[in-house]
Amino acid sequence: MHDNAISKRIDRMSNIKVALIQQSCQSNVAQNLHKSIAMIHQAASDGAQLVVLQELHRTYYFCQSENQKCFDLAEPIPGPTTHVFSSLAAELNIVIVASIFERRTAGIYHNTAVVLDTDGSIAGIYRKMHIPDDPDYYEKYYFTPGDTGFKPVQTSLGKIGILICWDQWFPEAARLLALAGAQILVCPTAIGWDGDDSVDEQQRQLFAWQTMQRSHAIANAIPLISANRTGFEKNPNKEDRGILFWGHSFIVGEQGETLAQASQDEEELLTGNVNFKRCEQVRQQWPFLRDRRIDAYKELEKRYCE
Amino acid sequence: MHDNAISKRIDRMSNIKVALIQQSCQSNVAQNLHKSIAMIHQAASDGAQLVVLQELHRTYYFCQSENQKCFDLAEPIPGPTTHVFSSLAAELNIVIVASIFERRTAGIYHNTAVVLDTDGSIAGIYRKMHIPDDPDYYEKYYFTPGDTGFKPVQTSLGKIGILICWDQWFPEAARLLALAGAQILVCPTAIGWDGDDSVDEQQRQLFAWQTMQRSHAIANAIPLISANRTGFEKNPNKEDRGILFWGHSFIVGEQGETLAQASQDEEELLTGNVNFKRCEQVRQQWPFLRDRRIDAYKELEKRYCE
Repeated sequence: MHDNAISKRIDRMSNIKVALIQQSCQSNVAQNLHKSIAMIHQAASDGAQLVVLQELHRTYYFCQSENQKCFDLAEPIPGPTTHVFSSLAAELNIVIVASIFERRTAGIYHNTAVVLDTDGSIAGIYRKMHIPDDPDYYEKYYFTPGDTGFKPVQTSLGKIGILICWDQWFPEAARLLALAGAQILVCPTAIGWDGDDSVDEQQRQLFAWQTMQRSHAIANAIPLISANRTGFEKNPNKEDRGILFWGHSFIVGEQGETLAQASQDEEELLTGNVNFKRCEQVRQQWPFLRDRRIDAYKELEKRYCE
Repeated sequence: MHDNAISKRIDRMSNIKVALIQQSCQSNVAQNLHKSIAMIHQAASDGAQLVVLQELHRTYYFCQSENQKCFDLAEPIPGPTTHVFSSLAAELNIVIVASIFERRTAGIYHNTAVVLDTDGSIAGIYRKMHIPDDPDYYEKYYFTPGDTGFKPVQTSLGKIGILICWDQWFPEAARLLALAGAQILVCPTAIGWDGDDSVDEQQRQLFAWQTMQRSHAIANAIPLISANRTGFEKNPNKEDRGILFWGHSFIVGEQGETLAQASQDEEELLTGNVNFKRCEQVRQQWPFLRDRRIDAYKELEKRYCE
């Protein structure tokens, strides 16, 4: 093979077309699933090789209240939902990152991402490590903290590092995924506004959310895909209240630059091209990983140091 | 004291007016120092209680080449420059963060920040922990890596966490300062463009630089002041080449929002108001520090985990 041909082949292997799906959800699980499947078909026909779904895409965001009946929404892995996406991944020859309310056993439920490889196999799972709990996001009630650690999932496209929603505020998580070889970060998420916040506060929150995720891309020189929910979901316990999920899903490159950006309130399929070769060039240009002071980071394992 | 009066008193203690100085530098050390002093006087008369100077403000950026003669620019701490700023801090009743090329002993030189308190005393020092080395920034030649660790400096205004230039790309450093009680982060820096980079690449670099620092504010809910150099400085070894320091010094609040923003090419005094009480409210709203998975961060002490 001529040098030129080899170089072209490497380029082809380093270039990946990625997609995310931003959708609204109803209480009808079948309808939500149907919509995800239709949009995945569209993504594949647009040439996407990796498709990322938002957090808990199969159901409405049930964590707005603490209700024991909602545990009935959980399912095992493998289970009905992974079977559907497994078949779809194999049929379309793509990698899919799905988000499952996992029933691991009686009394242990997780917020889990499952990666389906191009042959339909489960390439790996990641269980949400950082669990939030604040008004209208009562996740500590439902989700046992993950015990997978921060390990990327090896797929036929490369190593995929996963951060689920609250995880994405923690630079430690992104760094650990990068140190374990992640070539791309994906963030299935479900975040929105409380109607009581001022417009200024809402804009600061949205900006902070995007900025934090961009910073993971920059600090580690890897691209990032963030798939968020859209639409308003009523709070079952509060008259006329609920969460307005803010959409704004996005894809950024390894310098944190925007590759694709969704709207606030539309259901959207977003695509972008990432290049793993370019990531290595950026790491050569700004060699952060070379200069980390690993001799001086021990106290990161402490809650507080005063 | 009435509740209202107590509350007003606490508010007064929590509100601090901060300033940074963005300047260009020449080979004439006295001129550079004279300019810094004049702008500090201006900051104090504008009501600033904390003034941050840029990295190595006393000299031109000598790290563009490796030249043994440049070690003559180093000085002890305390020494001539800290004496000047110590007197100034006491005279104006302000806290000053100065940046010194420190001669610790023969053969050990550091890139060091010195914090002068309102009484003129040296409140503490921080020695740059992460040392870069890439074309035109040959800092590993000049600066021994710091051994202070990431400890904020206690002053009469509060605890100040310092990140010097390259440090600001490492989320570990900002987190450790926050865990050790830092109430504000300050970043004396000297960063600019290589004339060979495209305009697009230059803009990506500037955006990444600001985004990364904003992310430290967000992840830890503390304000941040970043003071950068401006102006073109010729490379002593390369015809018609040099660094165009990109200015754009800025102050952000605890949600990463812009409080003040300097231009690219002007010498500027920038001021902003920060509120420590508001920082605690933001930490209550988004309790990242509560949810850190300290049981799962051990591998942050590794160079690479594959």
